[in-house]
Amino acid sequence: MARIARTRVEFQGEATDRNVVLLGRQPSLWPQEAALDVVGTSIQRVDGRQVVTGRARYSSDVRPPGMLYGRILRSPFPHARIVHIDASRAELLPGVRAVVTPNNIPAVQWRDGRMILGNLLTFVGDEVAAVAADDQETAEDALSLIDVRYDELAFVLDPEDALRPDAPRVHPMGNLVGGEPRVYRRGDLQAGWSEAEVSVDETFQTQASLPAPMETHGSVALWDGQDLTIWDSTQGVFAIRAEAAEVLGLPLNRVRIIAEHVGGAFGGKQQLGKHTILAAILSRMSGRPVQISLARWEESLAAGHRHATRQRIRLGARRDGTLTAMELHCIVPVGYHGRALPVEGPVQEVYRCPNVLTEVHAVRTNDGPAGPSRGSGHAEGSFALECAMDILAERLGMDPLDLRLKNYAERDPVTGREYSSKRLRDAYLLAAERIGWSSRNPRAGEAAEEAPLATRKRGIGMATQIWSGGGGPPAYAVVRLNPDGSTDVITGVQEVGSGVATALVQIAAEALGVPPSTVRVILGDTRDAPFGPTSASSQTLSSVGPAVRSAAEDVREQLLELAAPIMGTPKEKLHIRNGFVHSRNAPAKRRAIAELLGAFDGAMLIGLGSREPNPDGYALRTFGAQFAEVEVDQGTGRVHLLRLVAVHDCGRVINPALVESQMVGGIVQGIGYALTEERKIDPGTGRPLNPDLEEYLIPTSMDVPEIDARAVNQPDPHGNSLGANGISDAPIIPTAPAIANAVYNAIGVPVTRIPLEPSRAIGRRPIP
Amino acid sequence: MARIARTRVEFQGEATDRNVVLLGRQPSLWPQEAALDVVGTSIQRVDGRQVVTGRARYSSDVRPPGMLYGRILRSPFPHARIVHIDASRAELLPGVRAVVTPNNIPAVQWRDGRMILGNLLTFVGDEVAAVAADDQETAEDALSLIDVRYDELAFVLDPEDALRPDAPRVHPMGNLVGGEPRVYRRGDLQAGWSEAEVSVDETFQTQASLPAPMETHGSVALWDGQDLTIWDSTQGVFAIRAEAAEVLGLPLNRVRIIAEHVGGAFGGKQQLGKHTILAAILSRMSGRPVQISLARWEESLAAGHRHATRQRIRLGARRDGTLTAMELHCIVPVGYHGRALPVEGPVQEVYRCPNVLTEVHAVRTNDGPAGPSRGSGHAEGSFALECAMDILAERLGMDPLDLRLKNYAERDPVTGREYSSKRLRDAYLLAAERIGWSSRNPRAGEAAEEAPLATRKRGIGMATQIWSGGGGPPAYAVVRLNPDGSTDVITGVQEVGSGVATALVQIAAEALGVPPSTVRVILGDTRDAPFGPTSASSQTLSSVGPAVRSAAEDVREQLLELAAPIMGTPKEKLHIRNGFVHSRNAPAKRRAIAELLGAFDGAMLIGLGSREPNPDGYALRTFGAQFAEVEVDQGTGRVHLLRLVAVHDCGRVINPALVESQMVGGIVQGIGYALTEERKIDPGTGRPLNPDLEEYLIPTSMDVPEIDARAVNQPDPHGNSLGANGISDAPIIPTAPAIANAVYNAIGVPVTRIPLEPSRAIGRRPIP
Repeated sequence: MARIARTRVEFQGEATDRNVVLLGRQPSLWPQEAALDVVGTSIQRVDGRQVVTGRARYSSDVRPPGMLYGRILRSPFPHARIVHIDASRAELLPGVRAVVTPNNIPAVQWRDGRMILGNLLTFVGDEVAAVAADDQETAEDALSLIDVRYDELAFVLDPEDALRPDAPRVHPMGNLVGGEPRVYRRGDLQAGWSEAEVSVDETFQTQASLPAPMETHGSVALWDGQDLTIWDSTQGVFAIRAEAAEVLGLPLNRVRIIAEHVGGAFGGKQQLGKHTILAAILSRMSGRPVQISLARWEESLAAGHRHATRQRIRLGARRDGTLTAMELHCIVPVGYHGRALPVEGPVQEVYRCPNVLTEVHAVRTNDGPAGPSRGSGHAEGSFALECAMDILAERLGMDPLDLRLKNYAERDPVTGREYSSKRLRDAYLLAAERIGWSSRNPRAGEAAEEAPLATRKRGIGMATQIWSGGGGPPAYAVVRLNPDGSTDVITGVQEVGSGVATALVQIAAEALGVPPSTVRVILGDTRDAPFGPTSASSQTLSSVGPAVRSAAEDVREQLLELAAPIMGTPKEKLHIRNGFVHSRNAPAKRRAIAELLGAFDGAMLIGLGSREPNPDGYALRTFGAQFAEVEVDQGTGRVHLLRLVAVHDCGRVINPALVESQMVGGIVQGIGYALTEERKIDPGTGRPLNPDLEEYLIPTSMDVPEIDARAVNQPDPHGNSLGANGISDAPIIPTAPAIANAVYNAIGVPVTRIPLEPSRAIGRRPIP
Repeated sequence: MARIARTRVEFQGEATDRNVVLLGRQPSLWPQEAALDVVGTSIQRVDGRQVVTGRARYSSDVRPPGMLYGRILRSPFPHARIVHIDASRAELLPGVRAVVTPNNIPAVQWRDGRMILGNLLTFVGDEVAAVAADDQETAEDALSLIDVRYDELAFVLDPEDALRPDAPRVHPMGNLVGGEPRVYRRGDLQAGWSEAEVSVDETFQTQASLPAPMETHGSVALWDGQDLTIWDSTQGVFAIRAEAAEVLGLPLNRVRIIAEHVGGAFGGKQQLGKHTILAAILSRMSGRPVQISLARWEESLAAGHRHATRQRIRLGARRDGTLTAMELHCIVPVGYHGRALPVEGPVQEVYRCPNVLTEVHAVRTNDGPAGPSRGSGHAEGSFALECAMDILAERLGMDPLDLRLKNYAERDPVTGREYSSKRLRDAYLLAAERIGWSSRNPRAGEAAEEAPLATRKRGIGMATQIWSGGGGPPAYAVVRLNPDGSTDVITGVQEVGSGVATALVQIAAEALGVPPSTVRVILGDTRDAPFGPTSASSQTLSSVGPAVRSAAEDVREQLLELAAPIMGTPKEKLHIRNGFVHSRNAPAKRRAIAELLGAFDGAMLIGLGSREPNPDGYALRTFGAQFAEVEVDQGTGRVHLLRLVAVHDCGRVINPALVESQMVGGIVQGIGYALTEERKIDPGTGRPLNPDLEEYLIPTSMDVPEIDARAVNQPDPHGNSLGANGISDAPIIPTAPAIANAVYNAIGVPVTRIPLEPSRAIGRRPIP
């Protein structure tokens, strides 16, 4: 029944060849839209009513009987050693049920090689101790009763400082992760530079920022004998299961992770958090369920942030715009155990250039962990690359869009593979038309000044994005057709707010030929579900979607086999639509599914499906372009964002409203990244300056201009059986460089640093 | 992948031909014990620790936040009409959140054709109204504030009275269910009687009794928008889902039934209860979860009981003991909407007799509903038949065992089919040897009187049992092999206390070749599980067991396929044992499953399996015999049970300790049925006389003698791929007639009525 296949899986910038088991049917690509009933329509979100009525249960809403509240004591110093810790006063406080410190915690090793609680502290917010008490207030009080004496150590926050020989040693292995930079080369750089007639050499800086989901990280842990259940706010229930089982030394089938609803994740909830394991340990000690939900300030300090970058970019081109050489030299601070995300991706793969060098230095610093964030690495890298491209265009006297079209990659420059589908050119042209690119002032800074005060100048800019989202990690699904014709789709993914549950309903409804209102998707629970991947790299839809279709097609075949003798029509002449089995020969002859199943065992039809292997020899990518129009007040330096046009190519669109909603959401986050968001640390103390949403400025509705977001909406013929790819990460990527290039176009001063605070928008120097 | 097959399914005495879908692998019969590692061993119950430590969560232990307590107002009259009902005082009581009466309840039709609450009441305990309140006491108080005026109607309790023309009409369709008796005939009765040289014509009476599980019926209902979750104490989560969805007009995939643990069922928890739907309605009205758990007295009145019977049996035989004619004329009271259980089964199928007539009159009376109870129908019918057989043996001057062997059915007398397996002869001989049958006094009543008072006489008796348990309704299973080598078995059955979860662990462990400690069974939840049947007719193991094996073998094949290239050994040369894949060629070459899965995608292997079709042309049955030794005090009439020997044939034994435990449990219930248990109704008022466990006497440990219970333990070669059949119902069936026959053997007076109270054991008349 099952078949073992080998498939190349690209996930979060890393490609691996894997053996996977294929189950169910791997159908061929769906036909064009016209033939589809449910896919391509904007049905309402299946979880919409629950979410807007407040009925949706998030992990922090879970209240098992007897639940305790856990709180974590965190380091006030960026680098310190605990010389003495005494929790006895805390333990005596009435209502306190368990306290853990480095002195009494079970020997649980953390993934950074240290114990889960230890005496060495490497950032402000590092975990020192934890308590569980009857209520939050008692837990807070207990924290203040833990006596700790710290030995403060020298610390370092700036990554360049951290690489100096005399820098404080953040990590026993040294401050440069891996001992050397991550280097990629292709072609002959020397030759590339000797061919170059025009060049750019510019250094860009991007800030640390936060995924800032509405729901912070939080877990509720409950033991039932040897079995551990954790309600966790996560984007990967199976990943958390694997990590928690490993850390606690439990078999996988004794750990259950539940995430019914997740209040946003944006890349920041892929990994097991220390708070989760501390909740589990406190629960074990107290014999009671324990909740630990992070406060907003803890989220900022310890739950992962998008790393800052310093990127020196060098571009060389011929007079006609053909790129001959590209270099990226990048340094990123990652905290104690973070890692550098694929900042170099855009330089490597957005443009056709034969000669490329990238090197990324990931540097350990005394800060909280850097981690994934929507469009990880690419948001940072595309900012630098796309701003550098506009500087190059300016020097070439070339239209920036023409420069990009000149260097358009028809094949993946990294692997030389054909793209499964690439409609970036369509995206460029449609977006250009909609923003009015032809009316843009062709030379940076030469726009007319706008009335009334004549200090404002308008500009239009653009930027490109490439991202994954077309491939798929292994994924499985079970589809049950109940005897009344209602359907359940059982998967191991989770709904982090992207709308995937709704898309899966549509896929199953289409594949089975039933109304979407009769389909229910069950997800976010590892107990019974087939394996599902982490919702990351925009690959949820493209991995689980085909698995759901595969399982549903399996059920459809069973149903047709059952119907054929009853309807007296060969199976091949039957088709299913809107809950009825029809005969192609006799259109009037139809039977409701529930009626057919009545002639059956009364149980259910069950199908098991898996994603097909990723296609051999293709590069699976998604593409997009964004164009921004801004008005810059040269008096105040303020950037007024007027309009944003986005066109993305994510293959076939399953649900237009949801895709638009993902684009708008990503763009809004991109606007914050471009203009206002910055996680700030006091360089003197290592403490956060804005660990809350009052001073960490995510855009409000007042900050968001008119957004014109569209999808190309053409099926990808090779990526998977749906023709549909993911759209989650992509929209944040080109927003900041599009805005920055619009500012450059308006005032003639290139933007090399975000967020684009007024002082920066005024610029330093004109282009020579 | 899937294949549609036709299979004959016998369930609860009814046979139907059904189309079923076959999934996974349908393997051939397991080899003999010697080759098996896990099956056939007495591993500990997987739920044992939870149950004995009180951690197991039964439905009545569930406490969703905000849960209300519901109580039901019940009719004090056996037959009445509500002329006025006013709940306004109850509604005003602080803490009362919802009240339903016939006046305001939503139009929900019950399966008896009436509305769920209506003005007609047909038994003491019939549902009148229900309330939900913050606590139990307030709910009770509220019931007493509901003003009801009843119009009392004439009522009838005795089934013979109910058939008289002038009897009160219990039901608009008349008091005889179906308007005629259920009749079965075979052969030529006339000819049979003319061949008969010796005959018996005797009337037997059995009492109404209770399944009396430790946990009474109870449900907690919780709505989440349109989705209804019910924690229910049930033996059929999928059956309850279907019934609840139908009654409430919901799609099946909007109803979830959970039964994590069930505190016994014994046949009485197969159907949806009114209390469950009342809880759902009260929950809908109040917007809060609502629990309704029945008090013991409600359980006795309204939750179903084993019906009483009056059975006239006529047996005709030749001098050599060959049966030539058998007749059963039976009348049973079933309440308003109960039904007669297969009382006629034993007369039809236990003995080879060509000429048979059975007729069963199911009669409606003003009592609570009769319903299934362990060994339904057969416990009642075997008492009458097996006592009649001993009377016949006495008249023939023949050994009762010889008489049975003389009429041993080599094929199923009803269908003429070969048995898939029948080792009743082995059971007879082994049990006879162990009780010391050869030392039995050969003539009834001729035993020596025992010292010291010389009023006590000893006797030995025996009885036979036939039951289903070999066939299987459709059943499916999912098996997941996790990357660490741990396994999950996901099924749609439920653990009602029989130990099936443990048996399924053993089956999966055996099929996969892994230690049973690494396998976990998930059951009792309809949300994600493949369909599983109701745990009834002793067919849980024989239906779900093969499905689990089928799914596990599917996974094993996948694992071997994966292992072959890694181990450089053809798949056929590999086998799996104790968590390692071994090469038959090179015994030292072995790999742990977890290690092999490391070379894999890190996700999991998943198999889907189904039970194979029931074999064509075979009768699937289980068999057994029990022998009892008693001492009867002729002064007091008391029966002292000295010893009980049971040997049952349920095919291969998966877990000897669990099979023994099922036998002992059934025998203890059989002892209660024989000697002490009787649900008594006051004939003057229709009210119960002993609706509690103080006066309804189930045996205590002091009432239980030495029990020597064994299984034949030979695989059934044709019934299913396990060779194993169910044992749940069988042991209760022959206990009462074995004891009765032992009493007859001791004192020479046949027993025609149970329970065998002292006054009855003294007897009426000697045998002529």
